Amino acid sequence: MFSNSRIFRIEWQHCDPAGIVYYPRYFAMFDSSTTMLFEKALGMTKFQFLKHYEFDGYAMVDTRAKFYIPGVFGDDVEIQTAVTEVKRTSFSIAHRILKDGALAAEAWETRVWVIRHPDSPGGFKAKSIPEEVVRKLAQ
Amino acid sequence: MFSNSRIFRIEWQHCDPAGIVYYPRYFAMFDSSTTMLFEKALGMTKFQFLKHYEFDGYAMVDTRAKFYIPGVFGDDVEIQTAVTEVKRTSFSIAHRILKDGALAAEAWETRVWVIRHPDSPGGFKAKSIPEEVVRKLAQ
Amino acid sequence: MFSNSRIFRIEWQHCDPAGIVYYPRYFAMFDSSTTMLFEKALGMTKFQFLKHYEFDGYAMVDTRAKFYIPGVFGDDVEIQTAVTEVKRTSFSIAHRILKDGALAAEAWETRVWVIRHPDSPGGFKAKSIPEEVVRKLAQ
Amino acid sequence: MFSNSRIFRIEWQHCDPAGIVYYPRYFAMFDSSTTMLFEKALGMTKFQFLKHYEFDGYAMVDTRAKFYIPGVFGDDVEIQTAVTEVKRTSFSIAHRILKDGALAAEAWETRVWVIRHPDSPGGFKAKSIPEEVVRKLAQ
Repeated sequence: MFSNSRIFRIEWQHCDPAGIVYYPRYFAMFDSSTTMLFEKALGMTKFQFLKHYEFDGYAMVDTRAKFYIPGVFGDDVEIQTAVTEVKRTSFSIAHRILKDGALAAEAWETRVWVIRHPDSPGGFKAKSIPEEVVRKLAQ
Repeated sequence: MFSNSRIFRIEWQHCDPAGIVYYPRYFAMFDSSTTMLFEKALGMTKFQFLKHYEFDGYAMVDTRAKFYIPGVFGDDVEIQTAVTEVKRTSFSIAHRILKDGALAAEAWETRVWVIRHPDSPGGFKAKSIPEEVVRKLAQ
Repeated sequence: MFSNSRIFRIEWQHCDPAGIVYYPRYFAMFDSSTTMLFEKALGMTKFQFLKHYEFDGYAMVDTRAKFYIPGVFGDDVEIQTAVTEVKRTSFSIAHRILKDGALAAEAWETRVWVIRHPDSPGGFKAKSIPEEVVRKLAQ
Repeated sequence: MFSNSRIFRIEWQHCDPAGIVYYPRYFAMFDSSTTMLFEKALGMTKFQFLKHYEFDGYAMVDTRAKFYIPGVFGDDVEIQTAVTEVKRTSFSIAHRILKDGALAAEAWETRVWVIRHPDSPGGFKAKSIPEEVVRKLAQ
């Protein structure tokens, strides 16, 4: 399955009064990591692939994270992201954060390919993931 | 076990280009909800109870959330928060978000009572939860 | 001119490793305060008044803030917000944050009433502020 | 005076329901840009230079920004950051954001070199900027 890795600099803005990453900000890092994986797999920015594949996003339905080693501003961590499963309208992703080579955090997520529901403000409905996308995520 | 409920106004700042809450921000809502539960149980602000009980925080070690109904700016949702387990150095919390009475999201979390590790920048070590706190969370 | 005041609880999530509010988050507080002023003046949520007056937002074009006293988690500050000028397509707002009655921060902002530009992704163009809105902001 | 430039990818997480950067997030970009300028000038991360020069931060006292062209997720903008003035305990910085070569935003800021005030929680007092730092910022 498709995977990606990136180096992420932890900044002052991500940290709380305890001097470590405020854990909700890890989820923004994971969300960006999922997007970067898609951008690499599809060869387009998110702005472009939302238009190209005519959908409105991959809505989060279930996510879990475990935290082992705190991140501190100035740390350059590695975020490893991999597709773990692709179904008809949903897919799963796993993330690992490495700090100095040690596992600092792990996360799992399941998302649904969605389009806006025409009759419901803020509502969305599932749509089949395009075959081309499925094929590229499976590489 | 101790529980709390609050009404939370979803704002423009919490939402993404799909017009719904950017899911990492739900974790900040849950974190604040846990703090509000503690503030109610202990009768002090977090600033005060960190000093009073001489600890540096309740570090997140494991959290999971499921999302069922998107939140939209202008929604007044109810966040229900309850202690589900208290051990020697850790405790667990469950959150439920209700939108118009329907379950919109659920989350679970396990946190460890910590103090800064004197020899390690950004490092923390577990500490026993004070008996008084255990007793108040069990009410 | 129309004005509003609200009490805002500063939380752990707003603070940085120095233990005080991370200053970019003040701008989110000011943005919410402007929205709350409009919601009070117009008697609708932002979700509702964007639809009702058929526009896409009040885009920030110029803002300045001065910070005098740091905010700390647990502080209940007062945010005073007032309309200072209304022109054909733009308006100005002033904010003051009071901590224990002392002036902790001030901000000024000028925004433009906008609709999406049909030919330009991410582009907007100015639109006249509806007379009804002008009248309500002038009260 | 010392200056720096960096390319910044605007992400989904920085944008609001209008599909453009939520303006308070620009201030976090500017704050990071100031830190990156210092890291380049001093040859250390912020975590390191706070320890090395024994101070607690450069507190924002006055900042202003003007916004000309909205940023959209997927944009790679250039952020140019330059020291404009260094006084005994304070300094000023200017930022410019370029999108496709056009000026998209500008900001100015004045900050004070501070240490925590021993007698006042959340309080800080100004300290002279070390001569070595003044010299490096003047290059």
